[in-house]
Amino acid sequence: MNEKELRLLLESVAKGSLSVEKAQTHLKNIAFEDVDGYANVDHHRAIRKGFPEVIFGQGKTSQQIVGIMSAMSKASDEVILVTRIGSEKALDVIKAFPDAQFHSDANMLILSRKEPGIKSDGNILVISAGTSDIPVAKEAYLTAKSMGNHVTTIFDVGVAGIHRLFAHRAKIERASVIVVVAGMEGALPSVVAGMVKAPVIAVPTSVGYGAGFGGIAALLGMLNSCSSNVAVVNIDNGFGAGYMASSINQIAAH
Amino acid sequence: MNEKELRLLLESVAKGSLSVEKAQTHLKNIAFEDVDGYANVDHHRAIRKGFPEVIFGQGKTSQQIVGIMSAMSKASDEVILVTRIGSEKALDVIKAFPDAQFHSDANMLILSRKEPGIKSDGNILVISAGTSDIPVAKEAYLTAKSMGNHVTTIFDVGVAGIHRLFAHRAKIERASVIVVVAGMEGALPSVVAGMVKAPVIAVPTSVGYGAGFGGIAALLGMLNSCSSNVAVVNIDNGFGAGYMASSINQIAAH
Amino acid sequence: MNEKELRLLLESVAKGSLSVEKAQTHLKNIAFEDVDGYANVDHHRAIRKGFPEVIFGQGKTSQQIVGIMSAMSKASDEVILVTRIGSEKALDVIKAFPDAQFHSDANMLILSRKEPGIKSDGNILVISAGTSDIPVAKEAYLTAKSMGNHVTTIFDVGVAGIHRLFAHRAKIERASVIVVVAGMEGALPSVVAGMVKAPVIAVPTSVGYGAGFGGIAALLGMLNSCSSNVAVVNIDNGFGAGYMASSINQIAAH
Amino acid sequence: MNEKELRLLLESVAKGSLSVEKAQTHLKNIAFEDVDGYANVDHHRAIRKGFPEVIFGQGKTSQQIVGIMSAMSKASDEVILVTRIGSEKALDVIKAFPDAQFHSDANMLILSRKEPGIKSDGNILVISAGTSDIPVAKEAYLTAKSMGNHVTTIFDVGVAGIHRLFAHRAKIERASVIVVVAGMEGALPSVVAGMVKAPVIAVPTSVGYGAGFGGIAALLGMLNSCSSNVAVVNIDNGFGAGYMASSINQIAAH
Amino acid sequence: MNEKELRLLLESVAKGSLSVEKAQTHLKNIAFEDVDGYANVDHHRAIRKGFPEVIFGQGKTSQQIVGIMSAMSKASDEVILVTRIGSEKALDVIKAFPDAQFHSDANMLILSRKEPGIKSDGNILVISAGTSDIPVAKEAYLTAKSMGNHVTTIFDVGVAGIHRLFAHRAKIERASVIVVVAGMEGALPSVVAGMVKAPVIAVPTSVGYGAGFGGIAALLGMLNSCSSNVAVVNIDNGFGAGYMASSINQIAAH
Amino acid sequence: MNEKELRLLLESVAKGSLSVEKAQTHLKNIAFEDVDGYANVDHHRAIRKGFPEVIFGQGKTSQQIVGIMSAMSKASDEVILVTRIGSEKALDVIKAFPDAQFHSDANMLILSRKEPGIKSDGNILVISAGTSDIPVAKEAYLTAKSMGNHVTTIFDVGVAGIHRLFAHRAKIERASVIVVVAGMEGALPSVVAGMVKAPVIAVPTSVGYGAGFGGIAALLGMLNSCSSNVAVVNIDNGFGAGYMASSINQIAAH
Amino acid sequence: MNEKELRLLLESVAKGSLSVEKAQTHLKNIAFEDVDGYANVDHHRAIRKGFPEVIFGQGKTSQQIVGIMSAMSKASDEVILVTRIGSEKALDVIKAFPDAQFHSDANMLILSRKEPGIKSDGNILVISAGTSDIPVAKEAYLTAKSMGNHVTTIFDVGVAGIHRLFAHRAKIERASVIVVVAGMEGALPSVVAGMVKAPVIAVPTSVGYGAGFGGIAALLGMLNSCSSNVAVVNIDNGFGAGYMASSINQIAAH
Amino acid sequence: MNEKELRLLLESVAKGSLSVEKAQTHLKNIAFEDVDGYANVDHHRAIRKGFPEVIFGQGKTSQQIVGIMSAMSKASDEVILVTRIGSEKALDVIKAFPDAQFHSDANMLILSRKEPGIKSDGNILVISAGTSDIPVAKEAYLTAKSMGNHVTTIFDVGVAGIHRLFAHRAKIERASVIVVVAGMEGALPSVVAGMVKAPVIAVPTSVGYGAGFGGIAALLGMLNSCSSNVAVVNIDNGFGAGYMASSINQIAAH
Repeated sequence: MNEKELRLLLESVAKGSLSVEKAQTHLKNIAFEDVDGYANVDHHRAIRKGFPEVIFGQGKTSQQIVGIMSAMSKASDEVILVTRIGSEKALDVIKAFPDAQFHSDANMLILSRKEPGIKSDGNILVISAGTSDIPVAKEAYLTAKSMGNHVTTIFDVGVAGIHRLFAHRAKIERASVIVVVAGMEGALPSVVAGMVKAPVIAVPTSVGYGAGFGGIAALLGMLNSCSSNVAVVNIDNGFGAGYMASSINQIAAH
Repeated sequence: MNEKELRLLLESVAKGSLSVEKAQTHLKNIAFEDVDGYANVDHHRAIRKGFPEVIFGQGKTSQQIVGIMSAMSKASDEVILVTRIGSEKALDVIKAFPDAQFHSDANMLILSRKEPGIKSDGNILVISAGTSDIPVAKEAYLTAKSMGNHVTTIFDVGVAGIHRLFAHRAKIERASVIVVVAGMEGALPSVVAGMVKAPVIAVPTSVGYGAGFGGIAALLGMLNSCSSNVAVVNIDNGFGAGYMASSINQIAAH
Repeated sequence: MNEKELRLLLESVAKGSLSVEKAQTHLKNIAFEDVDGYANVDHHRAIRKGFPEVIFGQGKTSQQIVGIMSAMSKASDEVILVTRIGSEKALDVIKAFPDAQFHSDANMLILSRKEPGIKSDGNILVISAGTSDIPVAKEAYLTAKSMGNHVTTIFDVGVAGIHRLFAHRAKIERASVIVVVAGMEGALPSVVAGMVKAPVIAVPTSVGYGAGFGGIAALLGMLNSCSSNVAVVNIDNGFGAGYMASSINQIAAH
Repeated sequence: MNEKELRLLLESVAKGSLSVEKAQTHLKNIAFEDVDGYANVDHHRAIRKGFPEVIFGQGKTSQQIVGIMSAMSKASDEVILVTRIGSEKALDVIKAFPDAQFHSDANMLILSRKEPGIKSDGNILVISAGTSDIPVAKEAYLTAKSMGNHVTTIFDVGVAGIHRLFAHRAKIERASVIVVVAGMEGALPSVVAGMVKAPVIAVPTSVGYGAGFGGIAALLGMLNSCSSNVAVVNIDNGFGAGYMASSINQIAAH
Repeated sequence: MNEKELRLLLESVAKGSLSVEKAQTHLKNIAFEDVDGYANVDHHRAIRKGFPEVIFGQGKTSQQIVGIMSAMSKASDEVILVTRIGSEKALDVIKAFPDAQFHSDANMLILSRKEPGIKSDGNILVISAGTSDIPVAKEAYLTAKSMGNHVTTIFDVGVAGIHRLFAHRAKIERASVIVVVAGMEGALPSVVAGMVKAPVIAVPTSVGYGAGFGGIAALLGMLNSCSSNVAVVNIDNGFGAGYMASSINQIAAH
Repeated sequence: MNEKELRLLLESVAKGSLSVEKAQTHLKNIAFEDVDGYANVDHHRAIRKGFPEVIFGQGKTSQQIVGIMSAMSKASDEVILVTRIGSEKALDVIKAFPDAQFHSDANMLILSRKEPGIKSDGNILVISAGTSDIPVAKEAYLTAKSMGNHVTTIFDVGVAGIHRLFAHRAKIERASVIVVVAGMEGALPSVVAGMVKAPVIAVPTSVGYGAGFGGIAALLGMLNSCSSNVAVVNIDNGFGAGYMASSINQIAAH
Repeated sequence: MNEKELRLLLESVAKGSLSVEKAQTHLKNIAFEDVDGYANVDHHRAIRKGFPEVIFGQGKTSQQIVGIMSAMSKASDEVILVTRIGSEKALDVIKAFPDAQFHSDANMLILSRKEPGIKSDGNILVISAGTSDIPVAKEAYLTAKSMGNHVTTIFDVGVAGIHRLFAHRAKIERASVIVVVAGMEGALPSVVAGMVKAPVIAVPTSVGYGAGFGGIAALLGMLNSCSSNVAVVNIDNGFGAGYMASSINQIAAH
Repeated sequence: MNEKELRLLLESVAKGSLSVEKAQTHLKNIAFEDVDGYANVDHHRAIRKGFPEVIFGQGKTSQQIVGIMSAMSKASDEVILVTRIGSEKALDVIKAFPDAQFHSDANMLILSRKEPGIKSDGNILVISAGTSDIPVAKEAYLTAKSMGNHVTTIFDVGVAGIHRLFAHRAKIERASVIVVVAGMEGALPSVVAGMVKAPVIAVPTSVGYGAGFGGIAALLGMLNSCSSNVAVVNIDNGFGAGYMASSINQIAAH
């Protein structure tokens, strides 16, 4: 249930077209709903935060994911995102929700029963440093898109051949918010942020080896960026970057 | 020289009220200016990024800081910020720039020759978890304010007595962007971000001891936040948080 | 052999109903017993610590586990716990001990030949932050229950939707001891401990990714808790948390 | 204001001996009180947690400490603890609160206007491994004592000469809760916990050098204890250990 | 070729019973021998160090191991040790060297064509803290035994039930050198070393989980031992401990 | 397209033998070429850096690798290197490029359609400490050779038998640039660099176990070398070492 | 009281020349003695370990050190060592014990009231890699000498000029036990141990900077030594190395 | 004594103008010279490595530095460098060697009794990212210059305003070897190396704060550079970078 749905319900009560008893039944689970003891689905989140709870697939069984999705889909018809879900679990879920779409390149499953609608005039740009960083970039792209934003991408423009980046200067300068995804030394966000006013969300990836330490080198590089319009999310957290970018892109819409 | 000053200059040339030669002299240093070999001041930054270069005081001599400020103040009358400057160096600088103000609680020096002007309808809220985190929060506050934003603060509302936070719920929900400053376990940004739609910039501080490891515990806590509208800056980096918050708050104004 | 069994034996000797020779034979292995050279089972532990040795299954063969269980079950009829045992090894053990029960959601095997009995009026509450933390929480629950305590649970009440936690306020305030299990940023123990007088045992889990570093972020968060009635056990150590909670809950019974 | 004081006040209102207006004035600050913008003193804590807020002296000015103490001492006559306060700041505070006592060996300042009273039949034992660990052990001792517990100590009984520990076996076995303070390899808590049923709170100290890494070696040793009735607090956190021990010792009194 | 074999050869030359040409041929490879470009076998080591080169099996193919063993077995009839070799590679090697014995519990393969002979009156004792530490302890045992020492063992005597250790006091006090193998908190070497004059070689193992960090906790514990007759080898390095113990036990024999 | 090919093309235009239109078409992709959205191949690199882009195989699909190789082979006939490619992917690639050669001992695939030609009078020497370090050393060898250098090797000359190294003294002193590959304690580069004037590129490998931490010990050892003619590349980065050595060996040829 | 003094006392009792009462008074404190509550001096150590307790000066006040020394000097006339004591504290102690000698280059204070006597035919050699490592090497030297060993030294023979080491080959080969002290990359122990049969105690020092991390690089290098007759003590722990070397050198004398 | 001086001496012997006895006396110390037991000066280094030993000032007393300089200056008239020497020690040294020059901005002291002479046609370029990195850059500059190279510099051209770097493109492309000095995220070497063929020596500095961890972030960034013509030296090791650059620049001259 999102903010609009809640207002409609209350207006119906005010107009007498909905009895207090029925409204009460409907609202009972608005705060959260216990799903068989293993989950407390936060239905209130769509009202409070403008977007429903997102299911973190890792460490949950297919059965648990289906159970949570069922509770969510009964409560609202907003989009449902499942992140960090492999193809095997995704197939199980699709049996229960045939309309859900699995994006194997981003390990995401999306159940979207209505068009999200565009909630901001701004636009989000997702840039990746290398080809191997694309899965994380795709996760950011899909998340931001599902949340109702214009999103575009530029892939494989790392700093070892920096003219590739500069060839996209106009597109970069037009973006309202930029997500920059990079592994290895993680230098790309600093260079991009040095070119623009817009806020840059930096996503370190675990791409690399040896002293890359599974993304630590990139993470530290980004936290120590000499450009100041940069903030950082967790290693490989494309989802968080897309969510944060959407949150920024929609501040006018709050 | 900011974007507006540049347009005026070019219009003067177009109207014939400024000779090409004089314009050329004026523009010669626009890209950057070499200051006695030790600094290349990036005067172009105000045009490109909407705010002039900020001087990182740590590791520079008073003399170097004054030199850079002189070059900057000749090129434009925008506000000049010096961060991470102790009282001793600040006194030296004030001798050369008597209008500069030193904020000892944030180790910042600000030279502001005209009112910054408010560049966004939005507002930034800076929250600190504890009394000891205030210096970092102040740095964020002063930075965002100097950059032309409405900024307010709430201090000392850590999670050990969480009702103190909830008492400010209305103010928190009204903010366009929120900066949350916390040391120790760094849990406050997760709780705040769970309450709102707005983007949250989390700033870990080095407050604490032992296994706090000078802010690493707080940093890791924030990077692993279970709330998704959170991005993180470097430990004790109040300046970066204020800058990023301003960048977000002014995206409509781009 | 527990404390009660020892007293009975000695009283029998005192009354003459048990010969010194027989008592001696019985007591010979009371300190510890060598099992085929690979283990020294500490039979004295039940007397000294109120609960027999617990078998750490990881790194032991099925055969070694069965051997140790045989020695223990001959010496006493107390409950026998095997932790960190996978389903394959568990099946091997159940062939030898058909009464043993395997709890696959907690990787524990329990051989309980008599009801443990409740040894304290207090009660232990086990809380988990997320659905993925449940296996560790279950290990704590089963351990504390096997050791003779009233135990209840609340699962999936993380800080990103903190009203879910507050809905259980009464139950939380009634607990004598609370075990809080959380991964990612590990903020939940601080919030819970801030609400109550009771001691809180915090258990970091390896749930998360990237800069969660397999539970280090959660561990550091908990060690740096700004609430003072918190102490921490090893990452994923549900068993230790349940044991410690039982030890606390039974201090009146010492 | 503690729980008893609150009940008295409400009973006075019920009996009509206190007007609603006066009660209201009295209760206005019960949740928390803003002290000059830099602190929100949590007066509700004494009711909620059985002990008032404790002032973490590090990173606060003498003036801030005095300000918070003034607010607290007006609200209640419970004991006030200031931790991590050096002798210089302590002298400043004593000027404002001449009854306060400074314990230089534990860097604590205690303002106790009435006897704490003993709130539990149990007793807490504080053990230190070496002479250099005594300051941390003293902090635990003073905290637990101020909170209304019987507390005793054994100092300098490290594992390199383990017979020194065993000489105190009777005292160790009589304790309800044990705090064990150790630096270097931090092995003492495992050995002590192996001897008793009682819960053991382990406190790593930064005593040592080189690969002790300021207490990390001891911390890791304690987190990996092969004894299960052990939980750990932050490095050098004698205060937290004393608080947790008190919380455990008083569970019967909840 | 060991020291004795070298002396015999030179004496033969001196006596004229061996021609200079033949001796030269024999000695040509004494410094080292190139094996197909991938290895330079150090035949001189047996002379210089009293024991031939030992083959580190990890990261080598079966073929490379056999090649090196062939070169070594032609040059001398001393024992040949291969460490860190799995059962699959071991089977390959045994095809080429049917007399070699594989010890699967220590991942060692030993080719011993003559009895090593006892080279010291002293004796080495190998102690392990837990059952899971036995593979590493076995590696130390087999190494020291192969090098010509009296070696005995005590397994599963960890500090959580320290009376099990004290029951072996006499045996411990009789040892010339003691190897102590322990995972988790690694406290056992400190306790053992506190009981005796003899040098103690501490071997941390990767047994444990979570904040054990694959043996780091045990390693740091041992490096920070409060007993001074302790030195440490690498994590899981049973071979190195056995070698070092032998080196110590035979100093009289140098 | 390399520098020579570019000059030829421009001369053809100057001479009129190539039309401007055709030249333009040819040059359009010279900066970089978008390959199906997942890669921006930097064709300009051969001109700018003297060697075309190298494909980092890890994290790319066979299909992506083939796509990039197709774009590169159309643009120029320079050698194409693919690093960190396993045998399975290599087989896929060889189907599309039957002339490509897979070096399984270095996980490299090389497509070389013309002899590289020797571009320097100098020579590069690659030394490995142990047999297990050979794969990394081979990667360095193949890279440097493909880039047009004289390259020789010495394998298995670690510091535990340092006479093996000294036996190659003449060869070592003749080298223009030396690559030293070592795992474990990584001491070999210091010893080699102490013997010569030539620059030494040190490559730490992940060979070892326990406190080797996957190459960190060797990396730190090399960064702290007491010999000054040493610089270091990433752990296991044989490719980078070979590339850097070539870059040095060809400085005269710039 | 050492082993010999104990035997004499008991023989006196047996012969009747010492009354049981007097003997009892004398022996009362043999296990340990409580010194004003802050120390439990382990007088039994000289009997058990062949050398009395050594005082770790760091973190103790001058007064505490004098107190412990008084208790020790009353109980026995063995040598008393105080390690990690600065010149200021040393002067305080010398006021109380004018015979004590302070070695400022090793931060040690030694009170030796009788010649230690040589307890082994073997000899200990202490080698340092650099001039800056000498203080740690001196600590090892003084410790081993005080414990009754022949000790010699070689200083400043690091691996960057390895011929300096080889010039001392004869002396190195004659040593029974070798202590090797090195900072930076810590490679020297591997090279030395590769030359000899004798056991080598490696001592990492904090000499160096940057990625030396206060001795961690050297420590890891030594733990990963490719020579097997090496064991390691804590960073800068010259005392421990000297003690361990003495323990090894005197194994014949046990 | 350098290579040329040695040849002259031997020729004099050959011609009979120098007696064998005198030559022998002269050559006696050529390998190394013992300076009062605390240093073994490696006089052979100038012959072997083309440059004499450099004195690492940190951790040595002024007296030791003077002693080593005296030994060196008697043996040869090559330049003598002392690194990491503060102004106080430098003044002491200048008393003994009035011709020595102290460079306070690089903490270096240089005693140069003859012009070094230029030993290569190539040139070395030293680039620094920020003003605060200049001291390290100066150390590299002075070292390379003292070793006989053409050296130029560009300071303060970090990636946040990357056009400042591109303005120097021609100078950068002309360099034979480039040293790039950067703190914070350490991204500059990747960008520079992406522009040129020349080898790049990257020097991380400890400039920065928080998650910069004293240069670790920059170090990791550089080790993971996506440009391949990069190798790295220790944090703040300007000396090593200058030395390595000289070694590379003079490979033609070997």
